Amino acid sequence: MKSDLDGLMSKRGLDAVVVLGGTEHNPIMHYVTGGANISSGIYVHRRGRPPHLVHSPIERDQAVETGLEVSSYAQHGLAKFLEKETDEVTARAAFQRAVLETLGVRGRVSFFGKLELSTTMPIVQRLGEISKEIKLVFDGGPSVFDEARSTKEPSEVDKIRSVGERCQDAIGRVVAFLRSCKADGAAVIDPEGKKATLGQVKKILRAELMRRGLVESMGSIVAMGGEAAVPHNYGTDENELRIETSLIMDVFPSEFGGSYHFDITRTFCLGEAPQEVRKIYQDVMEVQMDCISSLKVGERGWNYQNMACELFEKKGYSTLRRDEKLTEGYVHNLGHGIGLEVHERPRLAGPPTNTDVIVPGSVFTVEPGLYFPSKAIGVRLEDVVYAGEDGSFENLTTFPKELEIPLK
Amino acid sequence: MKSDLDGLMSKRGLDAVVVLGGTEHNPIMHYVTGGANISSGIYVHRRGRPPHLVHSPIERDQAVETGLEVSSYAQHGLAKFLEKETDEVTARAAFQRAVLETLGVRGRVSFFGKLELSTTMPIVQRLGEISKEIKLVFDGGPSVFDEARSTKEPSEVDKIRSVGERCQDAIGRVVAFLRSCKADGAAVIDPEGKKATLGQVKKILRAELMRRGLVESMGSIVAMGGEAAVPHNYGTDENELRIETSLIMDVFPSEFGGSYHFDITRTFCLGEAPQEVRKIYQDVMEVQMDCISSLKVGERGWNYQNMACELFEKKGYSTLRRDEKLTEGYVHNLGHGIGLEVHERPRLAGPPTNTDVIVPGSVFTVEPGLYFPSKAIGVRLEDVVYAGEDGSFENLTTFPKELEIPLK
Repeated sequence: MKSDLDGLMSKRGLDAVVVLGGTEHNPIMHYVTGGANISSGIYVHRRGRPPHLVHSPIERDQAVETGLEVSSYAQHGLAKFLEKETDEVTARAAFQRAVLETLGVRGRVSFFGKLELSTTMPIVQRLGEISKEIKLVFDGGPSVFDEARSTKEPSEVDKIRSVGERCQDAIGRVVAFLRSCKADGAAVIDPEGKKATLGQVKKILRAELMRRGLVESMGSIVAMGGEAAVPHNYGTDENELRIETSLIMDVFPSEFGGSYHFDITRTFCLGEAPQEVRKIYQDVMEVQMDCISSLKVGERGWNYQNMACELFEKKGYSTLRRDEKLTEGYVHNLGHGIGLEVHERPRLAGPPTNTDVIVPGSVFTVEPGLYFPSKAIGVRLEDVVYAGEDGSFENLTTFPKELEIPLK
Repeated sequence: MKSDLDGLMSKRGLDAVVVLGGTEHNPIMHYVTGGANISSGIYVHRRGRPPHLVHSPIERDQAVETGLEVSSYAQHGLAKFLEKETDEVTARAAFQRAVLETLGVRGRVSFFGKLELSTTMPIVQRLGEISKEIKLVFDGGPSVFDEARSTKEPSEVDKIRSVGERCQDAIGRVVAFLRSCKADGAAVIDPEGKKATLGQVKKILRAELMRRGLVESMGSIVAMGGEAAVPHNYGTDENELRIETSLIMDVFPSEFGGSYHFDITRTFCLGEAPQEVRKIYQDVMEVQMDCISSLKVGERGWNYQNMACELFEKKGYSTLRRDEKLTEGYVHNLGHGIGLEVHERPRLAGPPTNTDVIVPGSVFTVEPGLYFPSKAIGVRLEDVVYAGEDGSFENLTTFPKELEIPLK
């Protein structure tokens, strides 16, 4: 968590960390500023000293609200740097160097920020070249922020829990809509008498999420049959719902404006589920329950992916650990941490060299699935689990796992 | 535009460009894949040859839909690379090198993608070190994608226009709500008899945008009085509306799922506007009209920022070109290109070394403003202008500029 930062920097021999950019789609800047709404900034954390934020003058109100020590670009004379140099890389590198010097940054420094590589990498490289006091450090392993963010404070867990509750409410409304439909042969007819489509379901889901202050930045997966058999196929809007076909709904919204996410998947069948789909669903659910009940803090995430593969193989399915080109069977990883991003650490995933460990404060998904493009069947179940400080696990996902949705 | 890419690469002596990452919040990947919904990828454009996309096996359906030449991570043996190396940087750099070699990439190569710097920069650096066939190139000026994206194809303009129309419709609904309020002393009472707040206005705006398929990823600026006097203050939700006070509404949504943006600002006064606000509004509008009617293709963006400063100075206001610490007067730049990002090229902005030029296909904002924290007044007007292929300019913003909103 955030309070670990100094310790994590110390462990790596870092004297300072610098985060560049605005808070929009830049999770680390969001993290260090507590979700301020700024379009650019230079955040400087010198080990053992209060963090400092350099901000645009026109964003001075938000900067002050962060509670951080602040100063503005204008106070550091940005205009002079930009006017002196015709080359923007040189100007910005020189400006950042001056800022860091003014703030007394010396020694080993790591840079962070989700930013356009082609613009930012040359500036940071140049800064490293022109600054004698600073040595750029990019260690290959998990960064201080990867580690800090991989354990959640109670206030962060509360936010994830709250997003989860609202997200599950919204899915409940979608299921209520589906229940209000009726079958006409293999077709599914909505209460207004029209053939229901995947696009219609997505629209209802989006509106219900929005009503609860949530947004899915790239949409949700609502995929059926052959599309559900490819894990990341989002489903074609125009496709009509059909009875007795597996329907995957994978929803991973965040609070409006970024912030914390939730991630849940349920698989449904409208009307009666075919025996084959019921069997696959049962197998996925068993593997999920077995994995969740085996969770222990201190264990490596990889072990659980490996366990899921073993369990599926025992049930007669093919798995990814045998063949990375696999398309039929268990074709993806078991789970991932969740927070300011949908995919964080710890990863319950391969390769076997993945060293992520489940620790108190971890919040992550457990989401086994089985996919059969040849049979147009896909089934996935995904819950979010929280490893509490006492080593116990809490499933933050309470939405029922009921395959069949009876139609009217 | 996209069809210029080969020519732009040639001008810079680039043999290939590589774009890394998914399409979410990664405008260049969105641009080259035509808005596919993929969570990761390696896009490789060798000059004069068909572009190629390397994708995750579980996203094969979306990859094929892009119409690009494709291959999957599994086909390039990603798992083997990750299993062989304990260090992920080395593994990923070696994998990318192998992919580029297989695709016959040699010579001068630039890398792109909006990605976490701390993770991506070491991989790209390592790739440069281990790959003898490739020379990493990061030129400081506008990149091939900066240039390509700064001129819009008609289909892109249509998308911006469509977002603009829906956005302006939504603002119209918000104004209708404001008109349905009544004054009670200095307070503003909504039709349900409660004091109206900025948060309430934002909520109505967001719902109206959503209803039209638009989303504002970080919210909109709805700020009043002292908050409106600081350009990027988003306005405090709890603040109650007051009559006779300048109210800035700056809305810059995009199509759901990313894609193209619009950007419009209007300033309002509920009830009668004080003489002082009316004068400031008139001056801002005159500067905006003068700047728009002076637009010429081939002119530098900086010239128009400079012109706006001159015009404001003639009217007796202070401007940024005299003092970068300025807080009272004209305290920001005149405009920016708009497209897959809210801020693109051409920039109608300082410093004087800004070489961006307005050319046929440019789509950009013109948004002068005046700010007086000491008087709790802020006024800004922002339109989006399109420079057509024939050198004429079209204002894509038709929303009326009427300061006063009469209350019931």
